[in-house]
Amino acid sequence: MPERTKVAILGSTGSVGAQALDLIARFPDRFEVTALAAGSRLDLLVEQAKRFRPSLVTLAREDLHSSLQTACAPLGVDTACGEEGLLRVATHPEAERVLSAIVGAAGLKPTLAALQARKTVALANKETLVMAGELMLRETERNNALLLPVDSEHSALHQCLRGERREEVSRLILTASGGPFRQSSLEEMEAAGPEQALRHPTWEMGPKISVDSSTLMNKGLEIIEAHWLFGIESARIQVLLHPQSLVHSLVEMRDGSVICQLGTPDMRGPIQYALTFPDRWESPFARLDLSTAPALEFSAPDLRRFPCLGLAIGALEAGGTAPVALNAANEVAVGAFLARRAKFFDIPRTIEKVLEEHHPVAADSLATILDADEASRRRAEQILMKGVAA
Amino acid sequence: MPERTKVAILGSTGSVGAQALDLIARFPDRFEVTALAAGSRLDLLVEQAKRFRPSLVTLAREDLHSSLQTACAPLGVDTACGEEGLLRVATHPEAERVLSAIVGAAGLKPTLAALQARKTVALANKETLVMAGELMLRETERNNALLLPVDSEHSALHQCLRGERREEVSRLILTASGGPFRQSSLEEMEAAGPEQALRHPTWEMGPKISVDSSTLMNKGLEIIEAHWLFGIESARIQVLLHPQSLVHSLVEMRDGSVICQLGTPDMRGPIQYALTFPDRWESPFARLDLSTAPALEFSAPDLRRFPCLGLAIGALEAGGTAPVALNAANEVAVGAFLARRAKFFDIPRTIEKVLEEHHPVAADSLATILDADEASRRRAEQILMKGVAA
Repeated sequence: MPERTKVAILGSTGSVGAQALDLIARFPDRFEVTALAAGSRLDLLVEQAKRFRPSLVTLAREDLHSSLQTACAPLGVDTACGEEGLLRVATHPEAERVLSAIVGAAGLKPTLAALQARKTVALANKETLVMAGELMLRETERNNALLLPVDSEHSALHQCLRGERREEVSRLILTASGGPFRQSSLEEMEAAGPEQALRHPTWEMGPKISVDSSTLMNKGLEIIEAHWLFGIESARIQVLLHPQSLVHSLVEMRDGSVICQLGTPDMRGPIQYALTFPDRWESPFARLDLSTAPALEFSAPDLRRFPCLGLAIGALEAGGTAPVALNAANEVAVGAFLARRAKFFDIPRTIEKVLEEHHPVAADSLATILDADEASRRRAEQILMKGVAA
Repeated sequence: MPERTKVAILGSTGSVGAQALDLIARFPDRFEVTALAAGSRLDLLVEQAKRFRPSLVTLAREDLHSSLQTACAPLGVDTACGEEGLLRVATHPEAERVLSAIVGAAGLKPTLAALQARKTVALANKETLVMAGELMLRETERNNALLLPVDSEHSALHQCLRGERREEVSRLILTASGGPFRQSSLEEMEAAGPEQALRHPTWEMGPKISVDSSTLMNKGLEIIEAHWLFGIESARIQVLLHPQSLVHSLVEMRDGSVICQLGTPDMRGPIQYALTFPDRWESPFARLDLSTAPALEFSAPDLRRFPCLGLAIGALEAGGTAPVALNAANEVAVGAFLARRAKFFDIPRTIEKVLEEHHPVAADSLATILDADEASRRRAEQILMKGVAA
C-alpha cells in the first residue's frame, strides 16, 4: 500500500473543513487525518475524532477543554486548546498538508506557522492573503513551503496556469456569479435588507460571504488574493459576471489565447485539487455535463452599483496595510448590515471613509497587521454609530 | 538581436500558408522564411519570393518551372519543382520549423520527410494523421522530432494539456460549430445541395472542408487526429456542438475538472502557437472580449442526422487502413456532391459501402497507405456511378 497523505485541518467543523473530511472519507487508503482544530463545536469535533482517529484535536474555547479531554481519552486521541492548540495542529510534525479553513483574522497566525513549518498549505482562509499577502508569500518562499488556493476561482487560475510561464500571462479574469443584485437597480439595492442580500443564486454559503457576494466585495478580496498568489498587478486582474458559476476563472495569455477551468459548483473539487496537487485523483463526485448545462453568459460588472470592487482595487494599489483596513471595515459594516444597523450602501460608504483616513504602513509583521485591523474596526464602528452620512 | 526562427512552408499559396506568411510578416525580427513550396500558383509564389526572400521556392507543376526560374533568378532565390522540390523544402537544412499545409494526400510524403529530418512540424494537413497517424507518430518518436497541431481544435487540446499528465486525462471534447445543418431536419438535409452545405456559419473555408463541416465528417477526422496526437482511445474522445466557435476544445481531467481554450475564430492564433511553442509571443491580432460575446452554448450531436461522425469513429476503431478508406471515400463523395452528381446523404452512404468492403491491413508504410487510398477512391467512384442505393 502506498503512503497515505497526512492532513491537518484548521477549522474542521466549519463548512470547508466538513467538506474536506467528507472528501477524505472517500479515499480511506490515500488520506490520513493527523490533527483537527475547531472553534467551539465540541460535539461535532468529538464525532470527527471518533471517525478519523487523528493524533490530536483541539478547540479554541479553553473552557471546553476538559469535556474534550474526557471524550477523547478513551479514543487515544490527544487534546489541546486555545491558541497553543491551534498552533500545534498547524505545525503538527506528522502533517504534510495543512488545510487552513478558519474564518477571519484568527486564521492568520496558524497559517503563518504552518508555512514556517514548511508545510504544503491548502488555503481557504481569505484573510490570510488579503491582510498579509506580502508576509505570507515571503515566508512561503523563505521556508520552501507551498501555498495552494482552495477558493474555486483561484483554484481555477492555478489550474489554467499549470503549464504556462508567468511572464507570458496577459490577464487574469475572475468570474463572479453577480450575486442576487446582478440585475437590480441602484434604488432596489439601496432599499435591500439582509433577506435580499442573502439570496445567493448558485453557491450555498454562510451569511458574511453571501453579503460579500452581493456587494462584489468577495470578488474584490479575490483580486487581492490573486495578486499575491500569482504575482500579477491589479491592472491585469479583471472580473467578469458569469451567472451560471460553471466557468470558475480564466487566464488570457499574451498571444490572445484564453485558458479557463470549468466544473460543477462543488467546493470539494478545489479542496481535492489542493490536497492532491500536483496529482489529480479520480473524482467521486458528479461530472459537469455541458450538453445539458445552461448557456454560459459573461458581462462586465457595473462599478457604480458595485463600488466595493473599486474600493478593493484601490486598497490593493494603495498597498501596505490598506487592504487590512478595507477588510476590517467591510467585516464591521457587513455585521451591522446583517444586524439591520446599516443599509446596503452603508457598507461601501463605511469602507470608503475608513480607507480615506487610513495611512497605510508596510504590512511586514503580524503585529502591524493586527494593529491596523483593530484600529480600522474601531473606526468603522464609530462611523456606523454616528451614521455613515454624517 | 536574438536568432530568428527559420520557417519552411509546404503549401505557401493556400489559405493556411498565406495566413502564416501574413503572421510572419508581422514579426520581421523574429521569423525568417527559409523555403516555400506551392502547387501551381506561379504569380503568387513569385510575389512571396520577392517579399520574404527565402533560399528556395518550388512549384508542384513542373511545366511552370522555367517561368519560376526566370522570375526568381534576379532575386537570388533558388528554385525547384515537382516532388523533388517539395521534399527539398520539407527537409531544408536551414529550416527549424516546417509548416505542413498542403491539402490532401500529397502532404503525406513531405510531412514524413520533415519528421525524419528531425524538424518541428506544424501540421495543418489533416490527411497526415487521418491516413498515417501510426506511422507519423512512430517516426516522430524515432527521430526525436516534434509534431504540433495547427487545427484550432487540436491546438486548443494541446494548450489545455500543457501542464497535465496524460494518465490523468479523462476525456477530450472537440467542439464543432455544427455547420449549416445544425438545426435542420433530416428531410431538409436529404434535399440539400452545395449552396446549402457551403453556408458555414462561423469559419471561412474552402468548399471541401465546408462540406465536411456540414456532415460533421470534419469532426470525425479530427477525432482520428486527436487519437494519434494525444494518445487517447476513441471512446474517450467526444464531440460537443458549440455554434459560437469560441471555445475551441476542452479536456476533462479525472478529478472532474474541465480545462478549455477560447479565442477569436482566427486561424492565425493556432498557426502562431505552433510556430512559437513552447513560447507564446505577444499577439498582433484582436483579443476575445467575452463581455460582449454571445452566450456560449453546447449540445450533443445527433448521430442520426450526422452519420459521418459514427463512420469515422468506426473506422478509427477498425484500425489499420480503415481510416484511409474512410477519408478516400469521403473525398470522392464530397467531390461528387459538389459536382451535383450525388445527394447529401450519398456521402455517408458511399463511405459506409466502401468501409463495409474494405479489409483493413496495418498502415505501417506510405506505400500500403497510398494503395489503400487509391483502391478506396476507385471503389467509391464505382459506387457513385452505379447509384449509391444500388
